[in-house]
Amino acid sequence: MIYLDNSATTFPKPRSVMKSAEQAYFKYGANSGRSAYDMAVATSEQLYKCRKKLASFFSAPSAENVIFTYNCTASLNMAIKGIARKGGHFIISDLEHNAVLRPLEKLKKDGFCDYSIAKVESEDKLTVQNFRNSIRKNTVAIICTGASNVFGIAPPIKELSVLAHKYNLLFIVDCAQTAGVMTVDMKNDGIDILCCAGHKGLYGPSGTGLMVLGDDVKLNTIIEGGTGSNSASGNQPDTLPDKFESGTPNISGILGLSAGIDFLNKVGTENIYEHELSIVRYIQNKLCENPSIVLYTDLNNSKIKFSPIISFNISGKHSEETAYLLSENGIAVRAGMHCAPLAHRKMHTEDTGTVRVSPSYFTRKSEIDFFINSVNKIAK
Amino acid sequence: MIYLDNSATTFPKPRSVMKSAEQAYFKYGANSGRSAYDMAVATSEQLYKCRKKLASFFSAPSAENVIFTYNCTASLNMAIKGIARKGGHFIISDLEHNAVLRPLEKLKKDGFCDYSIAKVESEDKLTVQNFRNSIRKNTVAIICTGASNVFGIAPPIKELSVLAHKYNLLFIVDCAQTAGVMTVDMKNDGIDILCCAGHKGLYGPSGTGLMVLGDDVKLNTIIEGGTGSNSASGNQPDTLPDKFESGTPNISGILGLSAGIDFLNKVGTENIYEHELSIVRYIQNKLCENPSIVLYTDLNNSKIKFSPIISFNISGKHSEETAYLLSENGIAVRAGMHCAPLAHRKMHTEDTGTVRVSPSYFTRKSEIDFFINSVNKIAK
Repeated sequence: MIYLDNSATTFPKPRSVMKSAEQAYFKYGANSGRSAYDMAVATSEQLYKCRKKLASFFSAPSAENVIFTYNCTASLNMAIKGIARKGGHFIISDLEHNAVLRPLEKLKKDGFCDYSIAKVESEDKLTVQNFRNSIRKNTVAIICTGASNVFGIAPPIKELSVLAHKYNLLFIVDCAQTAGVMTVDMKNDGIDILCCAGHKGLYGPSGTGLMVLGDDVKLNTIIEGGTGSNSASGNQPDTLPDKFESGTPNISGILGLSAGIDFLNKVGTENIYEHELSIVRYIQNKLCENPSIVLYTDLNNSKIKFSPIISFNISGKHSEETAYLLSENGIAVRAGMHCAPLAHRKMHTEDTGTVRVSPSYFTRKSEIDFFINSVNKIAK
Repeated sequence: MIYLDNSATTFPKPRSVMKSAEQAYFKYGANSGRSAYDMAVATSEQLYKCRKKLASFFSAPSAENVIFTYNCTASLNMAIKGIARKGGHFIISDLEHNAVLRPLEKLKKDGFCDYSIAKVESEDKLTVQNFRNSIRKNTVAIICTGASNVFGIAPPIKELSVLAHKYNLLFIVDCAQTAGVMTVDMKNDGIDILCCAGHKGLYGPSGTGLMVLGDDVKLNTIIEGGTGSNSASGNQPDTLPDKFESGTPNISGILGLSAGIDFLNKVGTENIYEHELSIVRYIQNKLCENPSIVLYTDLNNSKIKFSPIISFNISGKHSEETAYLLSENGIAVRAGMHCAPLAHRKMHTEDTGTVRVSPSYFTRKSEIDFFINSVNKIAK
């Protein structure tokens, strides 16, 4: 199999990730943060080590600001609903995933909050202007994706954070596609709440999500329960990370994620980005030679940044059909809407969806040549 | 290490659980329910197989009614907040865990809902009466633990379900301590929403929780996002299980859980219960010979059912001290409040907490003899 669906889940994982995750069955099999016997203490220590690595990786204020969740969707719901208040207003980009859109649509339907959609332009200045024009008196936050999960387009995060903070708004970034792939630096980028998954660019197992909080972010909980702290009280503790980590976490997953971060630190995010971007640019340059193939972005455009994702279609074919034919050649790509209807509306691809190709650090050029050959055969 | 903290997390797991969980790194490494290539389809099939096993295991209406979550706490929050409505009222037992108490306390503080606490008595008839006396016009649900996570006391679930349904109330059961240990049959027990963890009595990995819905249970979502279904819409789909499963699930965890269920089906829950109950009864019979030891329950009382958990203290010692001294002998037990302040208030153990012993199917009699010896040495 030639696996080109790394934006969904990276595969394969580095061998060290599985080796580390396995330790939950041997050395670190206890519940963390609840007991004083050796294995429980050792398990807690491992989780803390992973928090510390992640805080350093993202330039977060402290290890305690790193919250382990189920997945990026859970993180985004916790962030959005944690700051939502009756009559509040959010601004999101027109590239957001359903993990942002659906919670807001729910809040809107419930008559609780409203939201506006700001267009991401081909010039960053204009994008920022669109967000600014959407700000209302009751706006509480700007939520923006680090990069579109369908088209790779990366909005100007740093500039948007400056805008948000100028108007005292919280700045939430959905880093599902950028964490581990492009440099994400909370301090430098001005991110108040970073949400991402552990199983994509961070090369960890699925069932791991992160919500990383900046300094002084005040957030309500949407889930409460046992935290192993302040247990005599029926009230959720206010300390981090306990406030947002109720119940037993995914210990095997976090152990694996910890090794994923080690892998990234060893290889270097810049090198990963360079490798993957060169692959999608190569794909673009090859596919654009075939007149039956429709491309949607120009990855050589120096005015916009891209995460290493490329979407295409074959004229006259639904994306699902193309993906199916490719799968018969042993190629794994994702087709359809990619849970991002806004992005498809923006690019007028609602009817066909797109075929998305997303490489990882492990993708080889020979695999890409086979892929291009296969596409060209189908698109004859 | 002699591990007697299985109520927190079972350890060790059956070898088959790790073997199955590992397949997420080889055979089933794709995202489920989102793509049509072979590995994605195979991964989805494995998840469905696990759902089917669980539906059969708990006598749930269908595989689709089995919802995978992060942990039991997430399940309980989804159940409680999914049926909460402004001005609604809940009834809970005086044995509930903070995973039930804290969400309700939050809803109460927000002025959204209220709740009453019904006392569990040493006679089931009286317990049911207490719950009945707590019913108000605005009551929406009864929430009860299958068994106390501190004292093992098991309230009369079946009788409470009859009461709940007589008054058109939803009946939610926190099966954290009973799933896999005692027979839990949704149909027979009249459970509308079953919440449990995968990493305790079901012998799966942590990071797996279950919310299993009975027939015709209408529930709102507290988390929305990408489901891989109906993706062109910004609205959460209404179909099960997608409605309550947004984002990527814990695939390795679910694969492991699937093997955990196979293990239970092979061994038989009744045999597990018999083995574990005989252990805690043996502990009771031995410890009660030592006048320095305080016990809180009588596991030979035939009027009440117990899950195989025993709590004790050594006179004049805080539970944490006893647990620490035991850990120096290589014995892993949990002390303190066990995230269940209500249960401690009931039993007047708020000041010292309790030392909790919880065996698993793998606990051997020789380990228990060593444990009893160690306790007696400390309690001289």
